[in-house]
Amino acid sequence: MSIERIAILGTGLIGGSVGMALRQNGFTGPILGWDREVVQAAIALGREAITEIASDPITAAQQSDLVLLSGPVFSILEWLENLAPILRSEQLVTDVGSVKGILCERASGLYNQPGMPGFLPGHPMAGKEISGAANADASIFYNAVWLFTEGANSAGMSPEARAKAIEWRDWVHRIGCRAIDLDPKRHDELCAWVSHLPQFVSTALSALLEEKFRDDEDLRAIGGRALREMTRLGASPYSMWRDIAHTNEEAIATTLHALEQRITHLRENLKTPELRTEFDLANRFRLPKQGKHSAK
Amino acid sequence: MSIERIAILGTGLIGGSVGMALRQNGFTGPILGWDREVVQAAIALGREAITEIASDPITAAQQSDLVLLSGPVFSILEWLENLAPILRSEQLVTDVGSVKGILCERASGLYNQPGMPGFLPGHPMAGKEISGAANADASIFYNAVWLFTEGANSAGMSPEARAKAIEWRDWVHRIGCRAIDLDPKRHDELCAWVSHLPQFVSTALSALLEEKFRDDEDLRAIGGRALREMTRLGASPYSMWRDIAHTNEEAIATTLHALEQRITHLRENLKTPELRTEFDLANRFRLPKQGKHSAK
Repeated sequence: MSIERIAILGTGLIGGSVGMALRQNGFTGPILGWDREVVQAAIALGREAITEIASDPITAAQQSDLVLLSGPVFSILEWLENLAPILRSEQLVTDVGSVKGILCERASGLYNQPGMPGFLPGHPMAGKEISGAANADASIFYNAVWLFTEGANSAGMSPEARAKAIEWRDWVHRIGCRAIDLDPKRHDELCAWVSHLPQFVSTALSALLEEKFRDDEDLRAIGGRALREMTRLGASPYSMWRDIAHTNEEAIATTLHALEQRITHLRENLKTPELRTEFDLANRFRLPKQGKHSAK
Repeated sequence: MSIERIAILGTGLIGGSVGMALRQNGFTGPILGWDREVVQAAIALGREAITEIASDPITAAQQSDLVLLSGPVFSILEWLENLAPILRSEQLVTDVGSVKGILCERASGLYNQPGMPGFLPGHPMAGKEISGAANADASIFYNAVWLFTEGANSAGMSPEARAKAIEWRDWVHRIGCRAIDLDPKRHDELCAWVSHLPQFVSTALSALLEEKFRDDEDLRAIGGRALREMTRLGASPYSMWRDIAHTNEEAIATTLHALEQRITHLRENLKTPELRTEFDLANRFRLPKQGKHSAK
């Protein structure tokens, strides 16, 4: 095996969950964990998501076969830039960033070229609306999809890094995920629809209800499953979503605008036969069954 | 006990679930079931939601202490009008209608007056996005809220009907519900926010996705928990929601318009500090924990 030692930079919800999933599924090598908040690394260690806390992320990355970047998009961007000049061509960097266009673009001059380390852009469609290593959970990957967006950029990856990329895909499979490869731009467009749109609609609805019904006990008593589902993501952290909003703004704005127009159309047709057309169309939309906890 | 014999007119998802819940919680008297679709009554009988199929709903109602009207709002409206002249003052009619203003208004001249039967308007906040007696389930009431909107209209109820109303509230409690009393107008406004708004947003989103991604396998593979939650209600039947849209249009349109504006605001601020304000507000919105299946 060529991945014997792993560094996880960012040991919060996703980084911690990946560490736990790897160890629970047979990875026996050292996993060095580092987090901007040292308490997150300490919790991750306590939960056996990592085997040791790295005091210096640069050294930890240099000493590992694979470096997993886990955190908000801009933090991954920064690590990509900082690590490229100091890693060796046989090392592999991979990530869990939610937006891939900007990351792949920035990485294209820095990775997968002669003498440069390898980069395999990834994105597990798994998560929770709550953050932190304390909420890490290996089972979020069970039956989830792990997206990869290598595109043409990875053609220049060294054979050693390539071997690690293949091995990493195997680990992704072992922890319960199905891999799907997408072009980065298409990734960002699809994720705007399936992930970012639900988040921002849920944020808008939760903010609206909080403002309008701040102290209304009846609303909270009456609100049932439908309202809970529609507002669950309202609890999501700004720190993560600010980066997504910034780096995928155009695609997200397109989906939100389309939904605004569709809701307006429906509102204007609450009493017309057009309402039936909308229900008929909506009735035809089906998602495959999936594991309860998998995917955001 | 004054409720010894019950007629359920409309033995679909909710009517069937009520019958099952009553019998599983100790109601031992006859429950006569009738449905516009005889197969629904047959399924309800097979599932022991009712004890016999009524061939004639009018006779079944006349022979029962309590008549439960269960179905779309307009069907309940029609039954309210048809039953008022033929029931006795000691009999009680109650319902599960989703919109209460129009029902209470129409009932005010026909019930709860000397010589007229009693009417206790009710609305369990429980359900599923799928309909029919085959999907009936007594557990949907566990930890749910059952709303009542008697208002001042019930002052003229006969003592015999009043006793049945008190007893019915006790049954509602026994099957797992917490009763909350609301003014009909406030009921309709609150339900527009917690139930009707989520439904129509889910319909709009599902219709939009079906139109845009009809045959896209990637979207369906990637779509996870967030998208499933936001589109679950897209499967809801038009037949039920047409009546709700018609009879609560103004309140629903108000909520949809408010959400449209809020989404627009968020879309226009994806890259400004205002995004943090929206996330902060949304993060503060909290619903109490509730039973998994309870409430729509």
